[in-house]
Amino acid sequence: MTQEHLFEQIKIKRSFLCVGLDIDLEKIPSHLISLEDPIFAFAKEIIDATHSYAVAYKPNLAFFESYGVQGWNAFDKITKYLNQNYPDHFIIADAKRGDIGNTASRYAKAFFETYDVDAVTVAPYMGKDAVEPFLDFNNKYAILLTLTSNPGAFDFQFTESEGLKLYERVLKTSQGWNGAERLMYVVGATKASAIASIRKIIPNAFLLVPGVGAQGGSLETVAHAGLNQQCGLLVNSSRGIIYKSQDKDFAEAAKNEAKKLQEEMALYLSQKGLL
Amino acid sequence: MTQEHLFEQIKIKRSFLCVGLDIDLEKIPSHLISLEDPIFAFAKEIIDATHSYAVAYKPNLAFFESYGVQGWNAFDKITKYLNQNYPDHFIIADAKRGDIGNTASRYAKAFFETYDVDAVTVAPYMGKDAVEPFLDFNNKYAILLTLTSNPGAFDFQFTESEGLKLYERVLKTSQGWNGAERLMYVVGATKASAIASIRKIIPNAFLLVPGVGAQGGSLETVAHAGLNQQCGLLVNSSRGIIYKSQDKDFAEAAKNEAKKLQEEMALYLSQKGLL
Repeated sequence: MTQEHLFEQIKIKRSFLCVGLDIDLEKIPSHLISLEDPIFAFAKEIIDATHSYAVAYKPNLAFFESYGVQGWNAFDKITKYLNQNYPDHFIIADAKRGDIGNTASRYAKAFFETYDVDAVTVAPYMGKDAVEPFLDFNNKYAILLTLTSNPGAFDFQFTESEGLKLYERVLKTSQGWNGAERLMYVVGATKASAIASIRKIIPNAFLLVPGVGAQGGSLETVAHAGLNQQCGLLVNSSRGIIYKSQDKDFAEAAKNEAKKLQEEMALYLSQKGLL
Repeated sequence: MTQEHLFEQIKIKRSFLCVGLDIDLEKIPSHLISLEDPIFAFAKEIIDATHSYAVAYKPNLAFFESYGVQGWNAFDKITKYLNQNYPDHFIIADAKRGDIGNTASRYAKAFFETYDVDAVTVAPYMGKDAVEPFLDFNNKYAILLTLTSNPGAFDFQFTESEGLKLYERVLKTSQGWNGAERLMYVVGATKASAIASIRKIIPNAFLLVPGVGAQGGSLETVAHAGLNQQCGLLVNSSRGIIYKSQDKDFAEAAKNEAKKLQEEMALYLSQKGLL
Protein backbone atom coordinates (compact mmCIF):
# COMPACT_ATOMS: atom_id res chain seq x y z
CA MET A 1 0.00 0.00 0.00
CA THR A 2 1.33 3.48 -0.79
CA GLN A 3 1.49 6.05 2.00
CA GLU A 4 -0.88 8.21 -0.06
CA HIS A 5 -3.41 5.38 -0.11
CA LEU A 6 -3.02 4.97 3.63
CA PHE A 7 -3.65 8.69 4.15
CA GLU A 8 -6.73 8.48 1.88
CA GLN A 9 -8.08 5.68 4.05
CA ILE A 10 -7.39 7.71 7.17
CA LYS A 11 -9.48 10.56 5.74
CA ILE A 12 -12.29 8.25 4.62
CA LYS A 13 -12.47 6.45 7.95
CA ARG A 14 -11.70 9.62 9.94
CA SER A 15 -9.42 7.37 11.95
CA PHE A 16 -5.77 6.48 12.42
CA LEU A 17 -6.58 3.48 14.57
CA CYS A 18 -4.60 0.27 14.39
CA VAL A 19 -6.16 -2.72 16.14
CA GLY A 20 -3.56 -4.97 17.71
CA LEU A 21 -4.27 -8.67 17.43
CA ASP A 22 -2.52 -10.02 20.55
CA ILE A 23 -4.54 -13.19 20.56
CA ASP A 24 -4.24 -15.21 23.73
CA LEU A 25 -6.22 -18.43 24.05
CA GLU A 26 -6.46 -17.84 27.78
CA LYS A 27 -8.28 -14.57 27.23
CA ILE A 28 -10.66 -15.19 24.35
CA PRO A 29 -14.30 -16.03 25.13
CA SER A 30 -14.73 -19.62 26.23
CA HIS A 31 -17.45 -20.40 23.67
CA LEU A 32 -14.82 -20.08 20.90
CA ILE A 33 -12.29 -22.48 22.37
CA SER A 34 -14.00 -25.65 21.11
CA LEU A 35 -13.94 -24.43 17.50
CA GLU A 36 -11.46 -25.93 15.07
CA ASP A 37 -9.42 -22.72 14.84
CA PRO A 38 -10.34 -20.50 17.78
CA ILE A 39 -7.56 -17.99 17.04
CA PHE A 40 -8.81 -17.29 13.54
CA ALA A 41 -12.46 -17.38 14.62
CA PHE A 42 -11.77 -14.74 17.25
CA ALA A 43 -9.72 -12.58 14.88
CA LYS A 44 -12.35 -12.77 12.15
CA GLU A 45 -15.10 -11.55 14.47
CA ILE A 46 -12.90 -8.76 15.81
CA ILE A 47 -11.97 -7.65 12.29
CA ASP A 48 -15.54 -7.79 11.00
CA ALA A 49 -16.69 -5.73 13.97
CA THR A 50 -13.97 -3.07 13.90
CA HIS A 51 -12.99 -2.62 10.24
CA SER A 52 -15.08 0.53 9.76
CA TYR A 53 -13.22 2.28 12.56
CA ALA A 54 -9.68 1.09 11.93
CA VAL A 55 -7.21 1.64 9.12
CA ALA A 56 -4.71 -0.99 10.21
CA TYR A 57 -4.39 -4.34 11.95
CA LYS A 58 -1.32 -5.50 13.79
CA PRO A 59 -1.04 -9.22 14.48
CA ASN A 60 1.53 -9.73 17.22
CA LEU A 61 3.69 -12.59 16.05
CA ALA A 62 4.84 -13.65 19.50
CA PHE A 63 1.34 -14.82 20.34
CA PHE A 64 0.94 -16.72 17.09
CA GLU A 65 4.37 -18.30 17.32
CA SER A 66 3.79 -19.46 20.85
CA TYR A 67 1.05 -21.75 19.48
CA GLY A 68 3.43 -23.33 16.98
CA VAL A 69 2.02 -24.61 13.70
CA GLN A 70 -1.55 -23.90 14.85
CA GLY A 71 -0.59 -20.26 15.40
CA TRP A 72 1.17 -19.87 12.05
CA ASN A 73 -1.80 -21.38 10.27
CA ALA A 74 -4.05 -18.86 12.02
CA PHE A 75 -1.71 -15.98 11.12
CA ASP A 76 -1.75 -17.12 7.49
CA LYS A 77 -5.55 -17.29 7.48
CA ILE A 78 -5.84 -13.85 9.08
CA THR A 79 -3.58 -12.14 6.55
CA LYS A 80 -5.42 -13.87 3.70
CA TYR A 81 -8.78 -12.89 5.19
CA LEU A 82 -7.71 -9.26 5.49
CA ASN A 83 -6.19 -9.11 2.02
CA GLN A 84 -9.27 -10.67 0.43
CA ASN A 85 -12.01 -8.89 2.34
CA TYR A 86 -10.47 -5.63 3.50
CA PRO A 87 -7.68 -4.85 1.01
CA ASP A 88 -7.64 -1.18 2.02
CA HIS A 89 -6.45 -2.01 5.53
CA PHE A 90 -2.77 -1.75 6.30
CA ILE A 91 -1.38 -4.97 7.82
CA ILE A 92 1.54 -4.79 10.23
CA ALA A 93 3.34 -7.99 11.23
CA ASP A 94 4.57 -7.07 14.71
CA ALA A 95 7.54 -9.37 14.58
CA LYS A 96 10.34 -7.16 15.97
CA ARG A 97 12.83 -8.94 13.75
CA GLY A 98 16.51 -8.08 13.78
CA ASP A 99 18.89 -10.25 11.87
CA ILE A 100 21.59 -9.75 9.30
CA GLY A 101 21.88 -9.89 5.56
CA ASN A 102 20.57 -13.06 4.01
CA THR A 103 18.61 -13.96 7.13
CA ALA A 104 16.87 -10.60 7.21
CA SER A 105 16.11 -11.03 3.51
CA ARG A 106 14.42 -14.33 4.27
CA TYR A 107 12.22 -12.69 6.90
CA ALA A 108 11.37 -9.83 4.57
CA LYS A 109 10.47 -12.24 1.79
CA ALA A 110 8.37 -14.36 4.13
CA PHE A 111 6.34 -11.46 5.45
CA PHE A 112 6.03 -9.34 2.32
CA GLU A 113 5.60 -12.14 -0.22
CA THR A 114 4.32 -15.27 1.51
CA TYR A 115 2.01 -13.44 3.90
CA ASP A 116 1.63 -10.23 1.89
CA VAL A 117 1.61 -7.84 4.84
CA ASP A 118 2.34 -4.13 4.36
CA ALA A 119 4.85 -3.62 7.13
CA VAL A 120 7.06 -5.47 9.60
CA THR A 121 8.42 -4.14 12.88
CA VAL A 122 12.22 -4.43 13.00
CA ALA A 123 14.77 -3.96 15.82
CA PRO A 124 17.60 -1.46 15.22
CA TYR A 125 20.35 -2.86 17.47
CA MET A 126 22.24 -4.67 14.70
CA GLY A 127 22.20 -1.60 12.45
CA LYS A 128 21.82 -0.93 8.77
CA ASP A 129 22.31 -4.41 7.31
CA ALA A 130 19.60 -5.80 9.61
CA VAL A 131 17.07 -3.26 8.33
CA GLU A 132 17.84 -2.48 4.68
CA PRO A 133 16.68 -5.91 3.43
CA PHE A 134 13.19 -4.87 4.57
CA LEU A 135 13.39 -1.61 2.59
CA ASP A 136 13.78 -3.31 -0.77
CA PHE A 137 10.11 -3.92 -1.50
CA ASN A 138 7.85 -1.48 -3.31
CA ASN A 139 5.12 -0.07 -1.09
CA LYS A 140 6.18 -2.21 1.84
CA TYR A 141 7.57 -0.75 5.08
CA ALA A 142 9.94 -1.49 7.93
CA ILE A 143 8.79 -0.02 11.23
CA LEU A 144 11.85 0.51 13.38
CA LEU A 145 11.66 0.10 17.16
CA THR A 146 12.72 3.53 18.34
CA LEU A 147 11.29 4.58 21.67
CA THR A 148 9.29 1.76 23.14
CA SER A 149 6.44 2.01 25.63
CA ASN A 150 7.82 -0.39 28.24
CA PRO A 151 9.78 0.48 31.42
CA GLY A 152 12.89 -1.25 30.01
CA ALA A 153 13.06 1.50 27.37
CA PHE A 154 15.04 3.49 29.95
CA ASP A 155 17.81 0.90 30.10
CA PHE A 156 19.42 1.86 26.78
CA GLN A 157 17.19 4.02 24.57
CA PHE A 158 17.86 7.23 26.51
CA THR A 159 21.62 6.75 26.73
CA GLU A 160 23.06 10.04 25.54
CA SER A 161 26.13 10.44 23.39
CA GLU A 162 27.37 13.56 21.59
CA GLY A 163 24.11 15.34 22.30
CA LEU A 164 21.89 12.56 20.97
CA LYS A 165 19.91 10.01 22.92
CA LEU A 166 20.14 6.52 21.44
CA TYR A 167 16.58 6.67 20.07
CA GLU A 168 17.37 10.01 18.39
CA ARG A 169 20.49 8.46 16.89
CA VAL A 170 18.36 5.58 15.57
CA LEU A 171 16.09 8.13 13.86
CA LYS A 172 18.92 10.19 12.37
CA THR A 173 21.17 7.34 11.31
CA SER A 174 18.36 5.32 9.74
CA GLN A 175 17.30 8.26 7.62
CA GLY A 176 20.57 7.81 5.73
CA TRP A 177 19.89 4.18 4.81
CA ASN A 178 18.85 2.99 1.35
CA GLY A 179 15.08 2.99 1.07
CA ALA A 180 14.67 5.27 4.10
CA GLU A 181 11.47 6.61 2.51
CA ARG A 182 9.96 3.22 3.42
CA LEU A 183 10.82 3.55 7.11
CA MET A 184 8.27 4.12 9.83
CA TYR A 185 9.02 4.25 13.57
CA VAL A 186 7.61 2.76 16.76
CA VAL A 187 7.22 5.41 19.46
CA GLY A 188 5.34 4.45 22.60
CA ALA A 189 2.41 6.59 23.72
CA THR A 190 3.85 6.48 27.22
CA LYS A 191 6.78 8.52 25.89
CA ALA A 192 4.54 11.15 24.26
CA SER A 193 6.59 14.03 25.65
CA ALA A 194 9.36 13.00 23.24
CA ILE A 195 7.14 13.01 20.16
CA ALA A 196 7.51 16.73 19.47
CA SER A 197 11.30 16.44 19.32
CA ILE A 198 11.01 13.26 17.25
CA ARG A 199 8.85 15.16 14.74
CA LYS A 200 11.70 17.64 14.30
CA ILE A 201 14.05 14.83 13.24
CA ILE A 202 11.54 13.00 11.05
CA PRO A 203 8.78 15.46 10.08
CA ASN A 204 7.25 13.19 7.44
CA ALA A 205 7.55 9.58 8.54
CA PHE A 206 4.64 7.65 9.97
CA LEU A 207 4.86 6.74 13.65
CA LEU A 208 3.29 3.57 14.98
CA VAL A 209 2.24 4.41 18.52
CA PRO A 210 1.40 1.60 20.94
CA GLY A 211 0.65 2.11 24.59
CA VAL A 212 -2.64 4.00 24.44
CA GLY A 213 -5.27 2.51 26.72
CA ALA A 214 -4.14 -0.45 28.81
CA GLN A 215 -0.58 0.90 29.09
CA GLY A 216 -1.74 4.40 30.07
CA GLY A 217 -0.68 6.67 27.18
CA SER A 218 -2.90 9.63 26.24
CA LEU A 219 -4.30 9.75 22.73
CA GLU A 220 -4.78 13.50 22.94
CA THR A 221 -1.14 14.18 23.83
CA VAL A 222 0.09 11.82 21.11
CA ALA A 223 -2.17 13.42 18.48
CA HIS A 224 -1.21 16.98 19.33
CA ALA A 225 2.51 16.26 19.22
CA GLY A 226 2.54 13.72 16.42
CA LEU A 227 0.05 14.60 13.68
CA ASN A 228 1.60 15.97 10.50
CA GLN A 229 0.11 17.02 7.16
CA GLN A 230 -0.33 13.39 6.02
CA CYS A 231 -1.56 12.38 9.47
CA GLY A 232 1.70 10.50 10.10
CA LEU A 233 0.28 8.48 12.97
CA LEU A 234 -1.05 4.99 13.45
CA VAL A 235 -2.15 4.61 17.04
CA ASN A 236 -2.49 1.06 18.21
CA SER A 237 -4.79 -0.38 20.83
CA SER A 238 -4.79 -4.12 21.49
CA ARG A 239 -6.08 -5.34 24.83
CA GLY A 240 -8.30 -2.28 25.36
CA ILE A 241 -10.31 -3.27 22.28
CA ILE A 242 -10.11 -7.00 21.77
CA TYR A 243 -10.58 -8.00 25.41
CA LYS A 244 -13.03 -5.25 26.40
CA SER A 245 -15.49 -8.07 26.97
CA GLN A 246 -14.48 -11.69 27.35
CA ASP A 247 -18.07 -12.88 26.97
CA LYS A 248 -20.30 -13.60 23.97
CA ASP A 249 -20.66 -9.87 23.27
CA PHE A 250 -16.88 -9.46 22.76
CA ALA A 251 -17.16 -8.35 19.13
CA GLU A 252 -19.81 -5.74 19.93
CA ALA A 253 -17.72 -4.49 22.86
CA ALA A 254 -14.64 -4.29 20.64
CA LYS A 255 -16.63 -2.38 18.05
CA ASN A 256 -17.78 0.14 20.64
CA GLU A 257 -14.26 0.69 21.91
CA ALA A 258 -12.88 1.08 18.38
CA LYS A 259 -15.69 3.52 17.56
CA LYS A 260 -14.92 5.55 20.67
CA LEU A 261 -11.26 5.87 19.70
CA GLN A 262 -12.22 6.64 16.09
CA GLU A 263 -14.49 9.48 17.20
CA GLU A 264 -11.76 10.97 19.33
CA MET A 265 -9.31 10.63 16.43
CA ALA A 266 -11.77 12.35 14.04
CA LEU A 267 -11.77 15.31 16.39
CA TYR A 268 -7.98 15.62 16.37
CA LEU A 269 -7.84 15.17 12.59
CA SER A 270 -10.38 17.98 12.23
CA GLN A 271 -8.51 20.24 14.62
CA LYS A 272 -5.39 19.66 12.54
CA GLY A 273 -7.36 20.62 9.40
CA LEU A 274 -6.94 17.22 7.76
CA LEU A 275 -10.64 16.41 7.27
CA MET B 1 21.27 -28.18 30.78
CA THR B 2 23.43 -26.82 33.59
CA GLN B 3 26.54 -24.85 32.71
CA GLU B 4 28.54 -27.49 34.58
CA HIS B 5 27.11 -30.18 32.33
CA LEU B 6 27.94 -28.08 29.28
CA PHE B 7 31.53 -27.68 30.49
CA GLU B 8 31.73 -31.46 31.11
CA GLN B 9 30.66 -32.07 27.51
CA ILE B 10 33.23 -29.57 26.29
CA LYS B 11 35.94 -31.53 28.10
CA ILE B 12 34.66 -34.90 26.86
CA LYS B 13 34.40 -33.74 23.25
CA ARG B 14 37.51 -31.53 23.51
CA SER B 15 35.44 -29.01 21.60
CA PHE B 16 33.42 -25.83 22.07
CA LEU B 17 31.96 -26.00 18.60
CA CYS B 18 28.40 -24.98 17.86
CA VAL B 19 27.09 -25.99 14.44
CA GLY B 20 24.73 -23.41 13.00
CA LEU B 21 21.75 -24.82 11.15
CA ASP B 22 21.04 -22.03 8.63
CA ILE B 23 19.14 -24.33 6.33
CA ASP B 24 18.44 -22.87 2.91
CA LEU B 25 16.57 -24.98 0.37
CA GLU B 26 18.51 -23.25 -2.38
CA LYS B 27 21.79 -24.48 -0.95
CA ILE B 28 21.14 -28.03 0.16
CA PRO B 29 22.13 -30.90 -2.14
CA SER B 30 19.65 -31.37 -4.96
CA HIS B 31 19.10 -35.09 -4.27
CA LEU B 32 17.38 -34.17 -1.00
CA ILE B 33 14.87 -31.72 -2.46
CA SER B 34 12.39 -34.34 -3.63
CA LEU B 35 12.12 -35.85 -0.13
CA GLU B 36 9.00 -35.20 1.93
CA ASP B 37 10.87 -32.99 4.43
CA PRO B 38 14.18 -31.95 2.88
CA ILE B 39 14.97 -29.48 5.69
CA PHE B 40 14.79 -32.15 8.36
CA ALA B 41 16.51 -34.75 6.16
CA PHE B 42 19.43 -32.38 5.63
CA ALA B 43 19.62 -31.41 9.32
CA LYS B 44 19.51 -35.03 10.45
CA GLU B 45 22.42 -36.01 8.23
CA ILE B 46 24.43 -32.97 9.34
CA ILE B 47 23.75 -33.72 13.00
CA ASP B 48 24.57 -37.42 12.70
CA ALA B 49 27.83 -36.56 10.95
CA THR B 50 29.01 -33.80 13.28
CA HIS B 51 27.71 -34.70 16.75
CA SER B 52 31.02 -36.14 17.94
CA TYR B 53 32.80 -32.87 17.25
CA ALA B 54 30.18 -30.38 18.41
CA VAL B 55 28.70 -29.57 21.81
CA ALA B 56 25.88 -27.36 20.51
CA TYR B 57 23.53 -26.85 17.59
CA LYS B 58 22.01 -23.52 16.65
CA PRO B 59 18.99 -23.62 14.35
CA ASN B 60 18.54 -20.17 12.85
CA LEU B 61 14.84 -19.43 13.14
CA ALA B 62 14.74 -16.94 10.27
CA PHE B 63 15.39 -19.72 7.79
CA PHE B 64 12.77 -22.02 9.28
CA GLU B 65 10.18 -19.26 9.54
CA SER B 66 10.68 -18.22 5.96
CA TYR B 67 9.31 -21.63 4.94
CA GLY B 68 6.16 -21.13 7.00
CA VAL B 69 4.45 -24.18 8.45
CA GLN B 70 6.84 -26.51 6.62
CA GLY B 71 9.76 -24.76 8.32
CA TRP B 72 8.21 -24.85 11.80
CA ASN B 73 7.45 -28.54 11.42
CA ALA B 74 11.07 -29.13 10.48
CA PHE B 75 12.30 -27.06 13.45
CA ASP B 76 10.04 -29.09 15.74
CA LYS B 77 11.37 -32.36 14.33
CA ILE B 78 14.98 -31.20 14.65
CA THR B 79 14.65 -30.20 18.31
CA LYS B 80 12.87 -33.49 19.05
CA TYR B 81 15.54 -35.44 17.17
CA LEU B 82 18.31 -33.73 19.11
CA ASN B 83 16.62 -34.12 22.50
CA GLN B 84 15.92 -37.81 21.89
CA ASN B 85 19.18 -38.87 20.28
CA TYR B 86 21.75 -36.39 21.52
CA PRO B 87 20.45 -35.12 24.87
CA ASP B 88 23.92 -33.93 25.88
CA HIS B 89 24.02 -31.33 23.12
CA PHE B 90 23.07 -27.76 23.95
CA ILE B 91 20.35 -26.42 21.63
CA ILE B 92 20.23 -22.72 20.84
CA ALA B 93 17.19 -21.27 19.10
CA ASP B 94 18.73 -18.34 17.24
CA ALA B 95 15.57 -16.29 17.24
CA LYS B 96 16.85 -12.82 18.23
CA ARG B 97 13.61 -12.11 20.01
CA GLY B 98 12.91 -8.79 21.69
CA ASP B 99 9.47 -8.12 23.00
CA ILE B 100 7.94 -7.01 26.26
CA GLY B 101 6.37 -8.63 29.26
CA ASN B 102 3.62 -11.07 28.44
CA THR B 103 4.73 -11.37 24.83
CA ALA B 104 8.29 -12.20 25.82
CA SER B 105 6.90 -14.74 28.28
CA ARG B 106 5.03 -16.41 25.44
CA TYR B 107 8.21 -16.68 23.38
CA ALA B 108 10.13 -18.03 26.34
CA LYS B 109 7.44 -20.61 27.03
CA ALA B 110 7.28 -21.63 23.37
CA PHE B 111 11.01 -22.18 23.05
CA PHE B 112 11.80 -23.61 26.48
CA GLU B 113 8.68 -25.73 26.95
CA THR B 114 7.13 -26.52 23.57
CA TYR B 115 10.44 -26.99 21.75
CA ASP B 116 12.60 -27.73 24.83
CA VAL B 117 15.70 -25.86 23.63
CA ASP B 118 18.39 -24.81 26.11
CA ALA B 119 18.84 -21.20 25.05
CA VAL B 120 17.31 -18.45 22.96
CA THR B 121 19.07 -15.42 21.48
CA VAL B 122 17.41 -12.18 22.60
CA ALA B 123 17.82 -8.55 21.50
CA PRO B 124 18.64 -5.98 24.21
CA TYR B 125 17.19 -2.77 22.73
CA MET B 126 13.93 -2.85 24.71
CA GLY B 127 15.75 -3.46 28.00
CA LYS B 128 15.16 -5.48 31.11
CA ASP B 129 11.50 -6.39 30.71
CA ALA B 130 12.18 -7.83 27.25
CA VAL B 131 14.85 -10.15 28.61
CA GLU B 132 13.92 -11.14 32.17
CA PRO B 133 11.01 -13.37 31.07
CA PHE B 134 13.65 -15.59 29.43
CA LEU B 135 15.63 -15.82 32.68
CA ASP B 136 12.83 -17.45 34.65
CA PHE B 137 13.48 -21.04 33.62
CA ASN B 138 15.79 -23.41 35.47
CA ASN B 139 18.84 -24.40 33.43
CA LYS B 140 17.64 -22.42 30.41
CA TYR B 141 19.50 -19.39 29.06
CA ALA B 142 18.98 -16.10 27.26
CA ILE B 143 21.86 -15.19 24.97
CA LEU B 144 21.89 -11.42 24.60
CA LEU B 145 22.96 -9.80 21.34
CA THR B 146 25.88 -7.70 22.49
CA LEU B 147 28.51 -7.07 19.84
CA THR B 148 27.41 -8.56 16.58
CA SER B 149 29.60 -9.72 13.71
CA ASN B 150 27.96 -7.68 10.93
CA PRO B 151 29.08 -4.29 9.55
CA GLY B 152 25.89 -2.64 10.91
CA ALA B 153 27.25 -3.32 14.42
CA PHE B 154 29.08 -0.01 14.06
CA ASP B 155 25.85 1.98 13.66
CA PHE B 156 24.88 1.88 17.33
CA GLN B 157 26.79 -0.72 19.35
CA PHE B 158 29.96 1.36 19.63
CA THR B 159 28.18 4.60 20.56
CA GLU B 160 30.00 5.84 23.66
CA SER B 161 28.38 7.47 26.63
CA GLU B 162 29.90 8.19 30.04
CA GLY B 163 32.94 6.09 29.19
CA LEU B 164 30.97 3.05 28.10
CA LYS B 165 30.24 1.86 24.60
CA LEU B 166 26.66 0.70 24.12
CA TYR B 167 27.68 -2.99 24.02
CA GLU B 168 29.61 -2.54 27.28
CA ARG B 169 26.55 -0.90 28.81
CA VAL B 170 24.46 -3.88 27.69
CA LEU B 171 26.90 -6.20 29.50
CA LYS B 172 27.02 -4.14 32.70
CA THR B 173 23.34 -3.28 32.93
CA SER B 174 22.15 -6.81 32.17
CA GLN B 175 24.31 -8.23 34.95
CA GLY B 176 21.98 -6.47 37.38
CA TRP B 177 18.85 -8.15 36.09
CA ASN B 178 16.99 -10.94 37.88
CA GLY B 179 18.35 -14.29 36.74
CA ALA B 180 21.53 -12.74 35.33
CA GLU B 181 23.35 -16.00 36.12
CA ARG B 182 21.38 -17.44 33.19
CA LEU B 183 22.63 -14.83 30.72
CA MET B 184 25.07 -15.56 27.93
CA TYR B 185 26.23 -13.06 25.30
CA VAL B 186 26.64 -12.97 21.53
CA VAL B 187 30.00 -11.49 20.56
CA GLY B 188 31.04 -11.70 16.92
CA ALA B 189 34.39 -13.28 16.05
CA THR B 190 34.99 -10.32 13.72
CA LYS B 191 35.12 -8.13 16.85
CA ALA B 192 37.63 -10.37 18.64
CA SER B 193 39.78 -7.41 19.67
CA ALA B 194 36.97 -6.43 22.06
CA ILE B 195 36.75 -9.83 23.74
CA ALA B 196 39.52 -9.19 26.25
CA SER B 197 37.77 -6.09 27.56
CA ILE B 198 34.43 -7.93 27.53
CA ARG B 199 35.98 -10.66 29.70
CA LYS B 200 36.85 -7.99 32.28
CA ILE B 201 33.16 -7.03 32.59
CA ILE B 202 31.79 -10.58 32.53
CA PRO B 203 34.59 -12.97 33.53
CA ASN B 204 32.32 -15.97 33.97
CA ALA B 205 29.54 -15.82 31.41
CA PHE B 206 29.51 -17.95 28.30
CA LEU B 207 29.98 -16.12 25.00
CA LEU B 208 28.37 -17.37 21.81
CA VAL B 209 30.75 -16.37 19.05
CA PRO B 210 29.54 -16.42 15.45
CA GLY B 211 31.58 -15.15 12.54
CA VAL B 212 34.40 -17.68 12.43
CA GLY B 213 34.97 -19.06 8.94
CA ALA B 214 32.75 -17.60 6.21
CA GLN B 215 32.63 -14.20 7.95
CA GLY B 216 36.40 -14.08 8.47
CA GLY B 217 36.89 -14.18 12.27
CA SER B 218 39.92 -16.01 13.68
CA LEU B 219 39.31 -18.92 16.04
CA GLU B 220 42.76 -18.54 17.55
CA THR B 221 42.25 -14.87 18.45
CA VAL B 222 38.81 -15.60 19.89
CA ALA B 223 40.10 -18.52 21.96
CA HIS B 224 43.06 -16.65 23.40
CA ALA B 225 40.97 -13.67 24.44
CA GLY B 226 37.79 -15.47 25.43
CA LEU B 227 38.53 -18.78 27.16
CA ASN B 228 37.96 -18.79 30.92
CA GLN B 229 38.24 -21.51 33.58
CA GLN B 230 34.92 -23.10 32.51
CA CYS B 231 35.76 -22.64 28.84
CA GLY B 232 33.13 -19.89 28.56
CA LEU B 233 32.99 -20.04 24.78
CA LEU B 234 30.71 -21.56 22.21
CA VAL B 235 32.10 -20.81 18.77
CA ASN B 236 29.61 -21.16 15.95
CA SER B 237 30.22 -22.09 12.36
CA SER B 238 27.29 -22.44 9.99
CA ARG B 239 27.92 -22.12 6.26
CA GLY B 240 31.58 -23.20 6.57
CA ILE B 241 30.41 -26.59 7.83
CA ILE B 242 26.98 -27.35 6.47
CA TYR B 243 27.62 -26.14 2.90
CA LYS B 244 31.24 -27.25 2.62
CA SER B 245 30.01 -29.58 -0.11
CA GLN B 246 26.67 -29.20 -1.83
CA ASP B 247 26.91 -32.65 -3.39
CA LYS B 248 26.09 -36.16 -2.16
CA ASP B 249 29.15 -36.12 0.10
CA PHE B 250 27.86 -33.09 2.05
CA ALA B 251 27.62 -34.90 5.40
CA GLU B 252 31.12 -36.31 5.10
CA ALA B 253 32.45 -32.86 4.13
CA ALA B 254 30.62 -31.28 7.09
CA LYS B 255 32.10 -33.91 9.40
CA ASN B 256 35.63 -33.17 8.16
CA GLU B 257 35.17 -29.44 8.68
CA ALA B 258 33.72 -29.92 12.16
CA LYS B 259 36.58 -32.28 13.02
CA LYS B 260 39.13 -29.72 11.83
CA LEU B 261 37.64 -27.03 14.05
CA GLN B 262 37.37 -29.47 16.98
CA GLU B 263 41.05 -30.35 16.69
CA GLU B 264 42.03 -26.72 16.70
CA MET B 265 39.76 -26.13 19.71
CA ALA B 266 41.31 -29.07 21.57
CA LEU B 267 44.68 -27.39 21.16
CA TYR B 268 43.46 -24.11 22.68
CA LEU B 269 41.68 -25.95 25.52
CA SER B 270 44.93 -27.78 26.27
CA GLN B 271 46.97 -24.61 26.16
CA LYS B 272 44.52 -23.08 28.65
CA GLY B 273 44.99 -26.13 30.91
CA LEU B 274 41.35 -27.17 30.69
CA LEU B 275 41.89 -30.72 29.36
